Amino acid sequence: MVKVDLNCDLGESFGAYTIGNDEEILRYVTSANIACGFHAGDPSVMRKTVKLALEHHVAIGAHPGFPDLAGFGRRNMAVSPEEAHDFVMYQIGALSAFVQAEGGALHHVKPHGALYNMAAVDASLSEAIAQAVYRVNPDVILYGLAGGELVKAGEKVGLRVASEVFADRTYQEDGTLTSRRLPNALITDDEEAVKQVVRMVKEGKVLTQQGKDISIQADTVCIHGDGAHALAFARHINNVLREEKIEIIAQ
Amino acid sequence: MVKVDLNCDLGESFGAYTIGNDEEILRYVTSANIACGFHAGDPSVMRKTVKLALEHHVAIGAHPGFPDLAGFGRRNMAVSPEEAHDFVMYQIGALSAFVQAEGGALHHVKPHGALYNMAAVDASLSEAIAQAVYRVNPDVILYGLAGGELVKAGEKVGLRVASEVFADRTYQEDGTLTSRRLPNALITDDEEAVKQVVRMVKEGKVLTQQGKDISIQADTVCIHGDGAHALAFARHINNVLREEKIEIIAQ
Amino acid sequence: MVKVDLNCDLGESFGAYTIGNDEEILRYVTSANIACGFHAGDPSVMRKTVKLALEHHVAIGAHPGFPDLAGFGRRNMAVSPEEAHDFVMYQIGALSAFVQAEGGALHHVKPHGALYNMAAVDASLSEAIAQAVYRVNPDVILYGLAGGELVKAGEKVGLRVASEVFADRTYQEDGTLTSRRLPNALITDDEEAVKQVVRMVKEGKVLTQQGKDISIQADTVCIHGDGAHALAFARHINNVLREEKIEIIAQ
Amino acid sequence: MVKVDLNCDLGESFGAYTIGNDEEILRYVTSANIACGFHAGDPSVMRKTVKLALEHHVAIGAHPGFPDLAGFGRRNMAVSPEEAHDFVMYQIGALSAFVQAEGGALHHVKPHGALYNMAAVDASLSEAIAQAVYRVNPDVILYGLAGGELVKAGEKVGLRVASEVFADRTYQEDGTLTSRRLPNALITDDEEAVKQVVRMVKEGKVLTQQGKDISIQADTVCIHGDGAHALAFARHINNVLREEKIEIIAQ
Repeated sequence: MVKVDLNCDLGESFGAYTIGNDEEILRYVTSANIACGFHAGDPSVMRKTVKLALEHHVAIGAHPGFPDLAGFGRRNMAVSPEEAHDFVMYQIGALSAFVQAEGGALHHVKPHGALYNMAAVDASLSEAIAQAVYRVNPDVILYGLAGGELVKAGEKVGLRVASEVFADRTYQEDGTLTSRRLPNALITDDEEAVKQVVRMVKEGKVLTQQGKDISIQADTVCIHGDGAHALAFARHINNVLREEKIEIIAQ
Repeated sequence: MVKVDLNCDLGESFGAYTIGNDEEILRYVTSANIACGFHAGDPSVMRKTVKLALEHHVAIGAHPGFPDLAGFGRRNMAVSPEEAHDFVMYQIGALSAFVQAEGGALHHVKPHGALYNMAAVDASLSEAIAQAVYRVNPDVILYGLAGGELVKAGEKVGLRVASEVFADRTYQEDGTLTSRRLPNALITDDEEAVKQVVRMVKEGKVLTQQGKDISIQADTVCIHGDGAHALAFARHINNVLREEKIEIIAQ
Repeated sequence: MVKVDLNCDLGESFGAYTIGNDEEILRYVTSANIACGFHAGDPSVMRKTVKLALEHHVAIGAHPGFPDLAGFGRRNMAVSPEEAHDFVMYQIGALSAFVQAEGGALHHVKPHGALYNMAAVDASLSEAIAQAVYRVNPDVILYGLAGGELVKAGEKVGLRVASEVFADRTYQEDGTLTSRRLPNALITDDEEAVKQVVRMVKEGKVLTQQGKDISIQADTVCIHGDGAHALAFARHINNVLREEKIEIIAQ
Repeated sequence: MVKVDLNCDLGESFGAYTIGNDEEILRYVTSANIACGFHAGDPSVMRKTVKLALEHHVAIGAHPGFPDLAGFGRRNMAVSPEEAHDFVMYQIGALSAFVQAEGGALHHVKPHGALYNMAAVDASLSEAIAQAVYRVNPDVILYGLAGGELVKAGEKVGLRVASEVFADRTYQEDGTLTSRRLPNALITDDEEAVKQVVRMVKEGKVLTQQGKDISIQADTVCIHGDGAHALAFARHINNVLREEKIEIIAQ
């Protein structure tokens, strides 16, 4: 049976600040990327989010990001591969403590925001991240952009990887996402977005902005967790995938 | 054979900032308390310090502190026991990732600075810390002030504990350290300091400021690592302990 | 004509995190305490909040707090008076830049959270804060708890001060607020809360938990800005104060 | 009489961490760029450094940097011009409070590290910085790389500017510094470095790596403050400049 994972960023609250609808979105996803305190999250939020994910039988992943709380990890930073290696290792370790204490097991690692985007096109940064993951825990799955450098580096280093696709983003002929600065970067129609996912999962193909089909590996789909519409979309894509006889399950 | 551990705070550099003589002091101690990025240290410093400690066959401990880099973790903070539990767990996890990646094993946990001092006299804070340690790794040893609440909490929760004594501090009749605000808090004469340690280790006794002997458990001695004199003292206490046929070894 | 100021904490959002209903609450208050980036707020939030306050003709105050974003400045920290002096000065300066750039003038300074509470009972901490305020800008008004050490220190140093009272807190015979740990610390009935304020402003008296009236100076009332009820209460107290012919105005 | 300013980064210590020889280097420079707490420095260090600079009659400048203490502000960050505007304004304000409290006047602003380098080649970033400076204090001088975008933006916005040159860096035909990744980027011979400065100041010319002379404006020379050699070089360049009848003075 064809299958796919639905993943979502969680645990992004910090101190007195709350973001997201973690409890609600956990009903619609099969894996959770939990912030590790650098771009979002704090130790208490991490503990609670790990517990919540375990209660919902959702696979737990570390979601390491840049040390940039003010920028929510979304601003590119010119870190060296060695620095990235070290702070990814640190963040995985920190989250693992909570997972272990709650009786769970770390399932995957997915870099966050600017670190994710930079890694997708930077082989040496990706290799540093993959090495950090492998050295701390060779059993976890590395999530990266389908066709990007991070999944390549993960495979090279001996990790299982999951190729991630996006429901609400359009693709270019070379397999990259259309830049958000360009028109047509986003798919705003829910039906269209879900159809794109179904086709990526079932046929391994996506229609690019250039009007040409390309092959794409769709192991996991990124689901947004913030806002009322995000929840509605998450519920909707769940329903359609089931109707299409696609199993929704973490790898 | 009578034995004792010599421990020292290490890995306190941060980014462009350097503190301590880690390489030199590692020759004279048997266990290292490595800062975890909250009061001092950063991911790259942690990786390098773990490696260095392993090369010197020195036992590695996590040294969690308050989230107060500007205050070096030396300022009391009114955190709840739950908050302390969570950030101690976080820091142990973060350091453990580096220890594991370098092929070592975490040996102990010693809270830093204000967190150490507050825990020594606060049973509920100590219990929260001990629980955090136990839940992440029940095999590590919890270091705390001899006679203080932390070692009691550690034992209660099922952890092995190490009672820590100070060479250069004087003691009160109730077993507490003389407050630094009082005269005679510090022992500035090296010979006297070493003699106090030898007696604590061999006889389990210390002469208090009230002129009365009290019993004290001396499993590990805190050695300072910063400054030229610290190195000289570390070398000296090593020599004297050996002459006294006291084995210097981590538990 | 009898008059009183209504003040509210504003600009507490940070990066991607949003807190408060700044635009709405500004319609009901006459002075705004704007967070300065230590316990809450960031440079961009500060600029926008200053602009917003000026548009609403609300007097602008700096709201310096402890360097503890994770704890929202609500955790006591054992800082020295000198440290407090320096970080209060820093935060006033930072906010003043935005006020000046937007063509306004700094009106007051009110310490935040734990710093406010600690200062109220600590004469040397209060003196350090008052000195910092005076040295940066001798023309601003220092807000502090009515009857507390901060207003005393402000007067001593030569600043104008405003004694702050609380609508929703009960008072003790010695003029202090009833500790939140005790029952009856909070006044949950809006009518009762407003009546207490009216009496404090008009008669300079408040009925304590011991059943005895005491004198109290009520120059400014602390209004909460977060939550739907806060807005309703702010509107309500505005209406009642006007009916009572009390002018609502910043000093 | 021909004249030039010698500037140096100061006040880069943080909490328990010490960097630099501020007291010594102040004897050899005429303007000090004081860190403002984002990439280095803290409120107490800022106060002490401002006081020290005033005692040495050295002109005081704000030295705003990226919010990246771990990277010492040396890592490029993809901030928006608006974000840069806001955190430059914040930092200038913070330092100004200390300058004002100590009875001095802010003389200049020089962005630090990666922010300086990025601004030199980015017109919109430079404009945002120049606007922030002008709006807080139109009387200060903006320091930027000679021939770079920052000095252009400063002039455009109505600020006085100072074109900065480097003693120990080589130049390209287009007026830019030779990238540190290339050989010959650094001038390691002190005599050569001083000669380059003398010629830039007296003749307004520098010999590029392409063997061709270009025009260069040399209002201020960057002097390093860290390390024993830095002090020796600072003393040496002072002596030579005086022998060459070049007045060493802040603008």
